[in-house]
Amino acid sequence: MKRVYLDHNATTPLRDEARAAMVAAMDVAGNPSSVHAEGRAAKALVEKARAQIAAALGAEGADIVFTSGATEAAALALEGRGIACAAVEHEAVLAWCEASLPVDANGKVQVATPHAYAVQLANSETGVIQDLPEGLALSDITQGFGKLPIAFNWLGCDMALVSAHKLGGPKGIGALVMKRGIDLAARIRGGGQEMGRRSGTENVIGIAGFGAAAEAAARDLSDGVWERIAALRDKMEAAIAAEASDITFAGKGAARLPNTSCIVSPGWKGETQVMQMDLNGFAISAGSACSSGKVRASKVLAAMGFDEGAAASAIRVSLGPLTTEDDVMRFAERWCAQSRKHRARAA
Amino acid sequence: MKRVYLDHNATTPLRDEARAAMVAAMDVAGNPSSVHAEGRAAKALVEKARAQIAAALGAEGADIVFTSGATEAAALALEGRGIACAAVEHEAVLAWCEASLPVDANGKVQVATPHAYAVQLANSETGVIQDLPEGLALSDITQGFGKLPIAFNWLGCDMALVSAHKLGGPKGIGALVMKRGIDLAARIRGGGQEMGRRSGTENVIGIAGFGAAAEAAARDLSDGVWERIAALRDKMEAAIAAEASDITFAGKGAARLPNTSCIVSPGWKGETQVMQMDLNGFAISAGSACSSGKVRASKVLAAMGFDEGAAASAIRVSLGPLTTEDDVMRFAERWCAQSRKHRARAA
Repeated sequence: MKRVYLDHNATTPLRDEARAAMVAAMDVAGNPSSVHAEGRAAKALVEKARAQIAAALGAEGADIVFTSGATEAAALALEGRGIACAAVEHEAVLAWCEASLPVDANGKVQVATPHAYAVQLANSETGVIQDLPEGLALSDITQGFGKLPIAFNWLGCDMALVSAHKLGGPKGIGALVMKRGIDLAARIRGGGQEMGRRSGTENVIGIAGFGAAAEAAARDLSDGVWERIAALRDKMEAAIAAEASDITFAGKGAARLPNTSCIVSPGWKGETQVMQMDLNGFAISAGSACSSGKVRASKVLAAMGFDEGAAASAIRVSLGPLTTEDDVMRFAERWCAQSRKHRARAA
Repeated sequence: MKRVYLDHNATTPLRDEARAAMVAAMDVAGNPSSVHAEGRAAKALVEKARAQIAAALGAEGADIVFTSGATEAAALALEGRGIACAAVEHEAVLAWCEASLPVDANGKVQVATPHAYAVQLANSETGVIQDLPEGLALSDITQGFGKLPIAFNWLGCDMALVSAHKLGGPKGIGALVMKRGIDLAARIRGGGQEMGRRSGTENVIGIAGFGAAAEAAARDLSDGVWERIAALRDKMEAAIAAEASDITFAGKGAARLPNTSCIVSPGWKGETQVMQMDLNGFAISAGSACSSGKVRASKVLAAMGFDEGAAASAIRVSLGPLTTEDDVMRFAERWCAQSRKHRARAA
């Protein structure tokens, strides 16, 4: 039986366009800092990708600083700057920011003074989309980039975090997007690459894959791919909701990413569900994929006011651009069957 | 006319084994932090590469922390630790260490109290190999790894920096190698990957390429590939030395990497030579490849006591495992022809 991958918010398979760009980049041997022809060819790949990402993000004219991922970009942007956030942010943001902003039951963050705060565009666990106030210090837009129409130049925030592997590029490459003119001390120093903001020989193959993936993701988005996915997600949720009256979907009262469903079924541990569904051929997650091995109730759901039992039962089902109706309806059917078994045992 | 790439110390082409491992890794979609089958498959690739690198490095049992390259590894290992070094170190080390150690005319560093110092294994510009004293805080072994027999566990240093793209892996991946038990605060924080020492979703494709390249490089080394290359380098130097009596090779009085030649021909600017040889079909460099666009006399040669005119004339010719006799002798012939032209103009 073919496995069904429904954990696209953790990471999504490499797009064909990214694969082709990466394989082509493997033949470009030079170091982008070298002045000879081989070096200039490598530099050209990096700059092509930077332009592709700027176009996909509506960030023309902004500075795009390549990093090893959104986590490094968060450290570069946030360390020592006294920026605060809400508890629904990713661990990579929470590592540098006090989680002092209030969150409502729908997962929406309330911000009074935007310039002192970081607010994510969309939550990885629930898919809840924030209304970003003008003047934010930073937005983690990793989960939104590729799934939502975004124009960085109109978002009104100074900086944004992006990651390739959430939209079909490779893991290990991301960027900090910055309004032009923002000053930032480099954290990784040495050769002075990325205009002195981030040293180290560039991940040319990864960057080429990121650029191609961003371009392909933007095309998918304008082609309406995610409208089809949102309809599948809604159909799956309807099938699951029909199973028992105590099943809820975290954040369903707010606007959500088209591909994300956070299923709360109190009394049935999320990590148990992940393992049972894995054995049944489905890849899903309980909370975010990070912090390997750690098992604990979702901080995101706790911030939304779910009690610990409900938060610990949450699973995330996240669809990709190629997910089919058969994939999600088979998932719903198997999940409901497991849920019934669990309820019978618990009764 | 086929171009001849003689800038392997800047970066060396991707090995076939690395390419194959990377293409295979493109089909492994999971996030290594995910507990489902797809996640475990990705984790297995990361751990396989870690074992390959440990074996190639003689670092079994040591901790290998993957980073985005040696530059990030240097920042992780050195920031705020009061470790000093000599001026011949790479910019990525100099960024965090006072350059207080003396260097002799052959490029050798004198160390009295090893535990307080970082000393590179081999210099990127001259190829000069250091005798590493027991008890060093850190060694940057990026240029030696793959070209010299190394057993990290016998080196006697606490930490070492390595980079994939210097030995035929992809750019953008490296590692900090650490004796087990060393405590180090993470600089990139969040999900807690790499045993809490370096957060961020792993560069799975790059890591797979690094592991395969390290294994292939170790095989080349034990097959004696670099003995052939050292003989080619020596033959090239003899042809160049015969051209004029004022031509010298920096570090030739010391043991050097088998592939590296640093040619000093006072009065002819290194960057001019790089451009002229580029137009003639040869990729070489003046000083290290980093700091794109910056043009200045080599700090390494200045530390060895070369005057500014001599240091500014230095070029680096660095051979790769597939370099042929025809490659280097054509280079020597074209370089000598250009040198004669330059001397005629200058006369």
